Order: sequence, then C-alpha cells, then structure tokens
Amino acid sequence: MQQELEAYFDRLWPICRSITGDGLRASFKILQELIPLKLTEVPTGRQVFDWNIPKEWNIEDAYILDQNGEKIVDFKQNNLHVLGYSIAVDQQMSFQQLKDHLYYLEDQPNAIPYRTSYYKERWGFCLSYETYKKMALENGTYRVVIQSSLKNGSLTYADCVLKGQSDQEILLSSYLCHPSMANNELSGPLLLSFLYQKLSKIENRRYTYRFVIAPETIGVVAYLAEHAEHLKKHLHAGLVATCIGDAASFTYKRSKEASHEINRIAEHILKHETKGARIINFAVGGSDERQYCSPGFNFAVGSLMRSMYHTFEQYHTSLDNKSFISFKALEESVEMYLKIIKALELNQTYKGKIQYCEPQLGKRGLYPTVGALKDAQQELYRRLHLLSFADGKLDLLSIAEQRSDCILDYTETVQELLKADLIA
Amino acid sequence: MQQELEAYFDRLWPICRSITGDGLRASFKILQELIPLKLTEVPTGRQVFDWNIPKEWNIEDAYILDQNGEKIVDFKQNNLHVLGYSIAVDQQMSFQQLKDHLYYLEDQPNAIPYRTSYYKERWGFCLSYETYKKMALENGTYRVVIQSSLKNGSLTYADCVLKGQSDQEILLSSYLCHPSMANNELSGPLLLSFLYQKLSKIENRRYTYRFVIAPETIGVVAYLAEHAEHLKKHLHAGLVATCIGDAASFTYKRSKEASHEINRIAEHILKHETKGARIINFAVGGSDERQYCSPGFNFAVGSLMRSMYHTFEQYHTSLDNKSFISFKALEESVEMYLKIIKALELNQTYKGKIQYCEPQLGKRGLYPTVGALKDAQQELYRRLHLLSFADGKLDLLSIAEQRSDCILDYTETVQELLKADLIA
Amino acid sequence: MQQELEAYFDRLWPICRSITGDGLRASFKILQELIPLKLTEVPTGRQVFDWNIPKEWNIEDAYILDQNGEKIVDFKQNNLHVLGYSIAVDQQMSFQQLKDHLYYLEDQPNAIPYRTSYYKERWGFCLSYETYKKMALENGTYRVVIQSSLKNGSLTYADCVLKGQSDQEILLSSYLCHPSMANNELSGPLLLSFLYQKLSKIENRRYTYRFVIAPETIGVVAYLAEHAEHLKKHLHAGLVATCIGDAASFTYKRSKEASHEINRIAEHILKHETKGARIINFAVGGSDERQYCSPGFNFAVGSLMRSMYHTFEQYHTSLDNKSFISFKALEESVEMYLKIIKALELNQTYKGKIQYCEPQLGKRGLYPTVGALKDAQQELYRRLHLLSFADGKLDLLSIAEQRSDCILDYTETVQELLKADLIA
Repeated sequence: MQQELEAYFDRLWPICRSITGDGLRASFKILQELIPLKLTEVPTGRQVFDWNIPKEWNIEDAYILDQNGEKIVDFKQNNLHVLGYSIAVDQQMSFQQLKDHLYYLEDQPNAIPYRTSYYKERWGFCLSYETYKKMALENGTYRVVIQSSLKNGSLTYADCVLKGQSDQEILLSSYLCHPSMANNELSGPLLLSFLYQKLSKIENRRYTYRFVIAPETIGVVAYLAEHAEHLKKHLHAGLVATCIGDAASFTYKRSKEASHEINRIAEHILKHETKGARIINFAVGGSDERQYCSPGFNFAVGSLMRSMYHTFEQYHTSLDNKSFISFKALEESVEMYLKIIKALELNQTYKGKIQYCEPQLGKRGLYPTVGALKDAQQELYRRLHLLSFADGKLDLLSIAEQRSDCILDYTETVQELLKADLIA
Repeated sequence: MQQELEAYFDRLWPICRSITGDGLRASFKILQELIPLKLTEVPTGRQVFDWNIPKEWNIEDAYILDQNGEKIVDFKQNNLHVLGYSIAVDQQMSFQQLKDHLYYLEDQPNAIPYRTSYYKERWGFCLSYETYKKMALENGTYRVVIQSSLKNGSLTYADCVLKGQSDQEILLSSYLCHPSMANNELSGPLLLSFLYQKLSKIENRRYTYRFVIAPETIGVVAYLAEHAEHLKKHLHAGLVATCIGDAASFTYKRSKEASHEINRIAEHILKHETKGARIINFAVGGSDERQYCSPGFNFAVGSLMRSMYHTFEQYHTSLDNKSFISFKALEESVEMYLKIIKALELNQTYKGKIQYCEPQLGKRGLYPTVGALKDAQQELYRRLHLLSFADGKLDLLSIAEQRSDCILDYTETVQELLKADLIA
Repeated sequence: MQQELEAYFDRLWPICRSITGDGLRASFKILQELIPLKLTEVPTGRQVFDWNIPKEWNIEDAYILDQNGEKIVDFKQNNLHVLGYSIAVDQQMSFQQLKDHLYYLEDQPNAIPYRTSYYKERWGFCLSYETYKKMALENGTYRVVIQSSLKNGSLTYADCVLKGQSDQEILLSSYLCHPSMANNELSGPLLLSFLYQKLSKIENRRYTYRFVIAPETIGVVAYLAEHAEHLKKHLHAGLVATCIGDAASFTYKRSKEASHEINRIAEHILKHETKGARIINFAVGGSDERQYCSPGFNFAVGSLMRSMYHTFEQYHTSLDNKSFISFKALEESVEMYLKIIKALELNQTYKGKIQYCEPQLGKRGLYPTVGALKDAQQELYRRLHLLSFADGKLDLLSIAEQRSDCILDYTETVQELLKADLIA
C-alpha cells in the first residue's frame, strides 16, 4: 500500500488548493479514483448557520521581481508563497511600501509560513525570514504580481456513503483546503481514501459509513447545514482524520462526552495495539470536530492523529512536506482506523441464552472432558468469561476490559458461542 | 479451636470423596457433629438448569501391579491415584497400551495430580512423574484393577439455616467433592462448621444465615435449581469459603457489582483487621460464585480466601495436604469471617432523633462539663460524628469510613446512642 | 488595611468576652463601626432546639492572693485566668483545698489554658504550670476572689444582610465569645467586618450576603432557631471564618456534600491563587459548621481557615495572641474570601446563542483576519472554548476547569461575549 500512497501523494502535492476553487476540484478528482466521492457545489453567498460561503478564489501565478527582473519570490516554486485568497495585484513599489504585505517567521528563518485571509480582502506574500532579511538589506524597488481572481462561484465538498446493515452511521471526516502541505492536509484525505478501499471489502458491515472530505471549517459548516437533520437522527459516532502521516506515536482527542463508546473503543485499541499513545480531552483549537461537537450537535466525533497540530514545529509551514511524513506510518494509521472500526462492529451487547448457572460446555464439545480449568487455554477462559457477563446489558468492550483483554481477541469467541446458540 | 480443627481434619482427610457417592455422605455425617446439616439427595438423571445429575460413583479399590505382582500405584496409599469417576477395569496390558490412561505432571515430578472425568466414561490413574518415568523405563506388562461402580443413584448436598430477626439471608457456601486435599477442599467445610458454632451463640442476629455445603459446580447447580425462587427473594449477600487454610494473607474476590455492601464490608474489614490483603474483581475460573453470580441470579456473593486457587503450586495435587495448611491460620480465618458478619449486622442506617443542630450531650452525661473537645477521647468524637451524619440515608460503614474508622469500633457508640434515645 | 485591622484588634483584645454578657456587647459595638450589625437578645431559659439559653455571666475581677497579700494570679493581667462562667467566690483556703479549682497544662508550662464551664456551676482559675508548681511548693493558704454574677439576662447575637439581585443567600459566619484570643477568635469577626467593607462597594451583586457573628455553638443554635425557615428557603451556600489570621497556608474544610458548588469554587480558587492549601472533608470537632451542617439542615457551609483549630499548639491558650497572627496574612485572607465570592458571582450557566457550528467571530471583530489560531492569544482560546461548551448545562467553573483555567480569568471573556450577544 505504501507505494500507492506515495504515488497519490506525489500527484496531489503540487496542486494549489484553497477553501474554494479549481485546485480543490482537481484534487477531489484524483481521490475519486480510490473512493466514489460525490461532489457538491455550494454557491457564493449562501448562508450556512452563522457563516456565508465566500467568493471563489483561483490563482494562476504570483511573484516578486527585484530591480534586476529576477523572481525572488515565486508561487510556481512553492504555492505557499502567496497569502491564501490574495486579490490580484501588479504594482511597482518600494520595500517600505511592500513590507506590510510580507509574512515570515523570525524563529524559523528557512520556513515559508502558511497564511490566509479568507474573510478580508487583501494581498500578500509569505516568504522565509532569510529572503525577507535580504530584501530589507537591499531596500530596493519591487514589482509584485498576483494573477488571481476572486468572484462569485461555489465551494466544493465531497462525501460518500458505504451502506451497512443498520442505518446508524459512523462518520469519517477529513479536510482538503491547504496548498502543498503533507501531514496537516494530505495525510487525512489519503487515509480516508485507502480506508474506504479496505472497508468496502469487509462483508456484513453492521454500521453505515459516511466519508466526508471538505474544506476545513467553512466546508464542514456547509456540509452540516445540508445534513444536520439526517446526522442528528443517524450519526452514532465519528472520527476526524488529520495529521496522521508522521512517524510519531498516536494522539487521540476525545469527543466531549469522554465516556462515549467511540472514545472507549479508540482508547482501548490504542492501549492494546500501540505504545505511547496520548489521550486528550476535547478542546477547541483543533480541526472540524469543533463543528461536529458544537453544543447544538454535540456529536460523538473524536480525532485520531499522530503529532497533533500546533505541537510540531513544521505545522503550517513549508517544512510540513514529504520528508516530514512516512508512508509506512500512514499505512499503519490506515490499519489503526480499521482496527477501531472492527472493534466498533464487534462491540455489541450479547445475552447468554442460559442465564441461570453456567451452561454445560462439555456436552457441546467446548470444554475438556478430563482435567480442570488449570490447563485450559485463554480461549476457554474468554468463553466462560463472556458467558458469565453476557447479561444483555454490558457491552463486549466492558466485558473484555474486565479481563484486560483486547476486544478484538473475542472475534472468534463470539462466532463460536453464536454458532453453539449460547448467546444472542 | 485449633486442636478441634485438626481432629476433624484428620478424620475427614482419608475419605475418598467425589461429586456423588458414599465418601461424600460419610464426610457430611462427620460435619453434622458440628453443624445441623440437612442432607438432600438428587436422583441421577434429573435436569438442573443446563445440567443433568450424573450417575453415582463409588469405589473400593484401585491399583496397578507390575510383573512381580507388586502394587506400584495404590489407591489405598493415596486416593488421588485414581482418575475421579473411573469406570471399573481389571486387565493385563503393556505399558504402551496403558500409558494413555496415565496422568502426571512433568513440571512437578513428585506430585500426584488430581484429575476427574465426570461427564465422559473412561478410566485412568494419576501418578507422580517419577513413577511414570520408572514404568516407561521398565516398559513391562501390568495388571490394572479399578473396583468401582457407576450406576443410577443420587447426588447429596447439605444445608442448614440459622434464623435471625429478618428473613433477609446471608449465604455461606463451600464445597465438598475432592478426595484428600487440604486447602482446596477441607479448609472450606471446616471453616463453615466452626463458624456455625460461633455464630449460633450470638444473640439477636439481624440476618438469617444459610450454610450450604455441596459438591462443586453440579452440586450448587442442583442446589440453586431447588432454591432459586427463595434465594431471589431473600438473599442479601454471601461468601464462598475456599482455599482458606494456608498461612498466606487474605484474598477477597468481589461479587460482580463492586459497590455492593458485601464487598464494601469485606474490603473494609480486611483493610482494618489484616495486612497485605489482595482485592480482586469477580472473574470466572473460580469456585461456586460462578453459579451464584451467573447473569440470571447475579447474587452478591464474593469469596474470601487466602492463597487463591491456581496461584499456589500445590493446587490440585497431592502436595495440597496437611503440611501445606495451618490450623492457626484456619482459626484466624474463622474469626475474619465472623468479623465480616459482625460488621454486616452492625451496618444499618441510623437516624438521629435530633436533626437540627447538635444534641446537647452535656445534659445527658455524654460530654465533659469543663474543657473543650481538644481533650475529648476518640469515643466522644465518634459519638458526635455519628450524630452528625446519622441522616437516615448513609449507612454506618460510610459514616465510619469518613473518619477512617473501623466500623466495629462503633459497636459501643451505637449501643450508647440507642440507650440515650438519640438515634433510631 | 493592615493598620486598620491592627487598630481594631488592639481595641477588641482586652475585652473579656463570653457566650453572654457585657463584654460581648461591647465588642459588637466596636465592630458596628465597620459593619451595620443588628443585635438580637435571646432571654435566659429560652429553648433553642435541644438547648436552653444559659444565664448571663458578667465579671469584674478575679485574683488569688498569697499569704503576703500579693496577687499571684490576676484576671486584670490576663482574662484567661478565670475559668469561664465561674460563679462568685471570696474564700480563704489551703492549697490542698484550692488545687481542684486550678487548670493548667503540664506540657505547655508557660501557657495559661482557656477553659469554661458553661453548663455546670463551678468556679476555677486557669494558670501556667510554672505558677502552679510554685504554689504547690509553697503549699500555703490563699485568698481566692471572683467578683462575677450569673443571673437571668440574655445572649446576644448579631447579623447584617447585604442585599443582591437575587434572594439566594451566601452566609458568612464567625463567632465571638472567647476572651483575649487572637487567631481562634478575633481573626474571624475582623475578617468578616473588613470583607463587608469591600463587598458592599461591589456593584450588581447577584447574591444576597448574610453576615452572622454570634457566640460559638449556643449562639448559632439560637440564631438557627430563629432563622431556620428563612435559611432553608434561601441559603445557597456559606463559609465559616475562623483561625484565619496566622501566617500558615490555607485550610479549606468542605461542607458535607463534597461536590457542592461552594466546595468546588473554594478549592478551585485556592488551587489557582495560593500554594500549599489543604483540603479536608467535613468532620465534627470544628466550629459552627457543626450546626449549619447538622443533618436536618445540611447546609452547604464550608470553612476557610489557615492553621486549623487543634492543629497549632497555641490553640486555646494564652499563646494564641497578637504575636501569633499577622495582619498581612489577615488582609490576604480578606482578599481570598473576596475572590471566592467573585468566583461564585461569576459562576453561572451560560448558553451560546449560536448552538450549531462555531459563530463566525471574524465578522464581529473577535478573530484575527490573517493568520491561524496558532498565533492567537489565550483570550481568543478562552472565547472559543467558552462558546464551544456553553450549552446551558455546564457551569462556567466546569468549563474553565476543562482548560485548567482559573474561573476569574473569564471575567472579561464573559463580558465581551455578552456584549457581542453571543451568550446569554
């Protein structure tokens, strides 16, 4: 899977995405090779809850020429160089006039910062502090060119529903709106697309799975404006996939209700299947879980990440690039999401058909005929344990945790006891 | 008490018990000298929940003769030598034919294992690995004799009810069905019998006490089949006594509902009255609490042990013998059960008769007339403390724990305040 | 404030107070300069719950003369020298006759103990063990004189109500009945009086504040007898101020229901605004919270102290004097009470007016137009955090604690969001 991941990454990387525009559409088109995303266009100006869809932004080129006509800042070299949503400009100006339009990071002098101005019209360039200092020294005259358009159009979001036996839904959500950034952008949509590939091949799925890829914040606000009533009725739980491609250990951010099944399951799987995972409570300052968990919805949507946003220095800079992420780690992330899903599928409330005293397992060939429990294997213990606690109230996760077992170890136990007609 | 315990132990030890048969009846007869047990016979074939009462098994003798006619394995030397429930056999056979009928423990070469085959007819011998190796070396021809009978009959269980003021019952349960084993067998019935002696002499018992001694698993399943409706109505809590005679510190295994009074009381008493007690959650792989706590009943039945089954190497072998247990420890175990019972009796919900502001203890002679609380004794503090919290909702245990007191320290406090008509 | 505190302390110090009498009235009169206390007289003999108001006690002088006519024990030197509520005496007697009337502390040989005999008529002197030993050595004849009166009269208590917008009340209670003692007496009434000064100047108080200063125990029992019905209806929470003037770190004693808002707030403020605070559960052996928290009332009345009664060696002796306390500490204590009150005032349940998805703060000037959250200040985070959790159910304290913030940091956040009409 790693080579495929890398191939898709390489195709998506150069595209300049934003919260609207053709870069976004082109990116969705590539992902559609992996997952049958349905695209929806929401027109400029439409009100979505407290927000309005902004104008559509497209950009062809942007650069700064020095007195010798040399491109010292070039959008074609790195699409982070232009302030996101910059209006068009073509002007000669002194450094003194220009410098208020320049964004850089003094404490990361080689990094180009990622900046946007979605809701106030302005223009600007983002550049390394090294380049800025050179310009300040020259203190020359520059020609600044941004060939962009900002006009009525639409915002694009994408979703895809994978039906299961029940109409209860699990949401898998990520965002697409950043220019060339790796961990804090492409890792999420790539994970979701490859997860779709795996999940669609699993038979007898209990839950229905809803995949949503939309521009961050405004895109999800628009999505929720359209799907609020449906989701209120059907959404059982969900996960936001972001910053999931670097090599650090996992970070799980809970939905607001810490005891919800999604949080219990995610923490349980991380405890049993990984080392060093960090569990944190819901907090603002994150990604689209801010919308999903807003008080009116309060959906059970957590977020499984590796290095969380704001906690790695590459975040929101040109250093969040291919060299920062690992396709091996990204593949493991896909597997970890899949394990959580398998645990969700397995985690039902079973009820033993024989509630009074133990069933006699021996006569069903499920217990050794000589020798005591001392010799019995773990599988036998799990069988007895599940039967002892299967009261129709406790879920399998609680039952597994009583023995410090991983719920996934009960996959066969459940099958066997169902077959023997001992649980329902 | 220790000498008496030992005398009874010595009489019970040589008898070959099983889940049915005359050895079991003979053992009950000896215990009846201490506790007025009522015996009940359940006929072979009767269905008890998911189980059926097996045929009755009796045995006279069993041995293996070598080529010289010498008894190299002899039931009369140690009744563990025969596989429990072995059918009769009298046959000459080579070692190669015999060896599938031999049970031994490679990692405990001097121990005879305890094995049974209740629910599948076969025969076999249990022997030390040392003996097995000698036979394997000889590789001779042997005569194997088991003089046993397996026919329709009945299973015997015993109970005894000690009435109290209320019809709410405390169950004290142990099992009798193992051949010569000390900690994991005789310690339990002996403890219950001597506890009966002590408990029957206490006046004004609030609870009714039900003593049950039955063959493990099938015996208790049969007991529950008969008494289910009564116990569902009246059973408040209970304890299973097993592995309670060795010198290790105590182990308390909770019933399923960890916050039930029986668990709170048992843990409280162990904390205040012993050192190094282990508290564990309910788990399968134990004794008859598996039946009492099966989901349909879910009775509040815990188990107070010393070294828990499966955790000591002597378990289910000939090494679990008189030298492994201590009659001093067994006597202390009786006392510990008694303390738990006294705490249960004391743990009521009291309500102060004066609910608004403190009662004036001075005018009732319950408070010093000069000097401040600084000089007061602990008894005075407990008096004030109990009055302050006696709201008719909190039980005495909760109130005692607020001050980190042992509930038993309130025995006099309660008497005194009842006498002064300050609580009800 | 410290100089003022000291000046009032110096005026109150020499007065001999008791649970009744003119010393008590004189002390209230001085405090009335700071806080408009209303005095109430409860006549001797009136029943108040389980108690009766005792006779009124007044004292002019008390001393012991030795054979040379020298005053070896002199009430005018230290009013602790007389056993509180001593009846009048003027008698010549030998040391052997006298010694049963002498109270001293062997383990604190230079301290005069504080002792009383309110409910049994006797007389006595309290003196240092050094003086006692000297008398024992002399073994002479002494003239003992106590010029006191014990007759029908009344007990005085004081209160003052500071109205707020709501009729829900916060009780601030302390006691006045000890002779010259500093931490365990004057610190409490002084704190309350200066707190009144500050609190009365705060505008738009939500709660109504009830200040009660009464003789300990019997005075508060009398107060409650009169105000029980009103307080049951209106009392939200309260604090008992005692032992609040020494330089040790704070001790907070909870009301019985540990999770009540008053406890959560007090512990929260101590955690954020001090170091080394001790939190203890409600226990008897304290001050008037014993009455307020008696089961019939079970008011949410905690107690904020510094060195708790019984835990400092000066307690109830002549060593609890001006040199033991610190007016700087007492001023800080006033401020700490004020912070708790401000937190109580602020701790409401807010509901965001936009419940679905985040409000767009940018268009309201509450969010930067360029740059991501990374650069945002803590104030911006608090704003988003409060909006995300303002579901009309969680109180502000819970919301602040989710971010480990101090609730007082939200003072401006709340104002700002109210002004922007984003919360209600």
